[in-house]
Amino acid sequence: MSNNSSTRLPVIKVADNEEFAVNDALAIEEPLEIRLEYGKADQRQVQNISVTMRTPGNDAELALGFLFTEGIIKQPDNVNVIEHCFIACAENKENVIQVSLKEGIEPQLHNTERNFYTTSSCGVCGKASINSIKTVSAYNHSTTENRVNADVLYHLPAILQKHQKVFADTGGLHASALFTTDGELLLVREDVGRHNALDKLVGAALNKNLLPLDQHILLLSGRISFELVQKAAMAGIAIITAVGAPSSLAVQLAEEFKITLVGFLRNQRFNIYTQPKRILLKKYEDSY
Amino acid sequence: MSNNSSTRLPVIKVADNEEFAVNDALAIEEPLEIRLEYGKADQRQVQNISVTMRTPGNDAELALGFLFTEGIIKQPDNVNVIEHCFIACAENKENVIQVSLKEGIEPQLHNTERNFYTTSSCGVCGKASINSIKTVSAYNHSTTENRVNADVLYHLPAILQKHQKVFADTGGLHASALFTTDGELLLVREDVGRHNALDKLVGAALNKNLLPLDQHILLLSGRISFELVQKAAMAGIAIITAVGAPSSLAVQLAEEFKITLVGFLRNQRFNIYTQPKRILLKKYEDSY
Repeated sequence: MSNNSSTRLPVIKVADNEEFAVNDALAIEEPLEIRLEYGKADQRQVQNISVTMRTPGNDAELALGFLFTEGIIKQPDNVNVIEHCFIACAENKENVIQVSLKEGIEPQLHNTERNFYTTSSCGVCGKASINSIKTVSAYNHSTTENRVNADVLYHLPAILQKHQKVFADTGGLHASALFTTDGELLLVREDVGRHNALDKLVGAALNKNLLPLDQHILLLSGRISFELVQKAAMAGIAIITAVGAPSSLAVQLAEEFKITLVGFLRNQRFNIYTQPKRILLKKYEDSY
Repeated sequence: MSNNSSTRLPVIKVADNEEFAVNDALAIEEPLEIRLEYGKADQRQVQNISVTMRTPGNDAELALGFLFTEGIIKQPDNVNVIEHCFIACAENKENVIQVSLKEGIEPQLHNTERNFYTTSSCGVCGKASINSIKTVSAYNHSTTENRVNADVLYHLPAILQKHQKVFADTGGLHASALFTTDGELLLVREDVGRHNALDKLVGAALNKNLLPLDQHILLLSGRISFELVQKAAMAGIAIITAVGAPSSLAVQLAEEFKITLVGFLRNQRFNIYTQPKRILLKKYEDSY
């Protein structure tokens, strides 16, 4: 599946008013419908949970990570099997995937109602959004003891860039990467949608039994939205770093979960927005 | 409303292992619930249509643009009034907006089912996604005669950058901009969500009675997804340009609608993916 993440199309390149006809690589974007099968043996039902525009590849991880980070399933062993469905249509490739839950497992489908917002009794707002995530997340990092050296952080973007294979070809993909606190790369996932890239990463980590990810570093290739911090919080991540800027609500949610949030990580610089205690600067080490 | 697009928060800046405590600007991200009121005078009903994470400001344009580009309303004069709703909660600021349709106007609510995918009888796929948009869009550009000089395109990103006020402060926002084919800037809208930035722009253009936007140039600050081309197609845009890369499905949809799609517009270069006839290179002009 990982070979169908990019395609080549004819493109006219223009530079200094000269044009060149070439074949150029583009990131593939196709819809993926995630279906959930659940219920007792004699009463199995199938429900369409979501359609997301994603880059094909690692679809089973994407489905698993999505169901977990949205709070619909509680643990990976809720799942019996994850398989693509093929429908009688020439164009319909691997664009429907079905997650079958084990008998007796009830999915938390009320959690799918637009990321929990509508469950809040006082209407939508940032505070209600944060509170509703606190009710479904199993993790909080007020006592998580991991530490990371600033020097380790400086190197992460270059390591990610080396491993962003489809991005190198297309310039069109977001990435999520998981590192140890020593800066060792464990996992990278890419997608046209940044939330999909993180869902794939969390799905892969679930398959490897790595959760909670409280002794790791997450690196995001772009900006940090509320939704990305939500998904990271659901996976128990204690240190989020990103090449881009965070939003106000991303910072508030990180603070609420005692997650260390680092943004603008590039060119030997970064900003710490929350929980700076986990970042060690060289000057302190030298003096101890 | 436009003053609450960014906020200042305490941040620790780290550079070369030195740290500095500062107050830094962040882009605000808050949920917006869009409600639709419709029906006969004695049977008015209110329905929650969508919750989107957006940057506050231009909310009425966002709601109008969203309803139009999703095919839920056909024209702006379907709308009677657009107003924020205030609910009894201290935290709940301007995060609910209600669009009231004129009596007798029926919204096309089946179009909201995840961007039309589920209306396709053969399951989800790129081709079905494109076909379902063709059934609701009023515009096609096979005969649209506008032209633009390559020299004009080169200058657009710098003009946009000058007018991206919140981005300049925060580094955290996407932008959509509308230009004439002579390169004159008409409209700019910013948001943490790129689809919201485009919805705001289309909403503003609807309020100014500018549609169809077939004599204009759209500039996107980032990458070009299927969803952005869908929204542009619904607004009748014939030339889409972007600083970033397009996806495969974005290119296919643009070709289907005879839209000119330009990507990687930066440093006096760009790529033309579809309908190159609308882009004039200097060398041709000189020789005629």
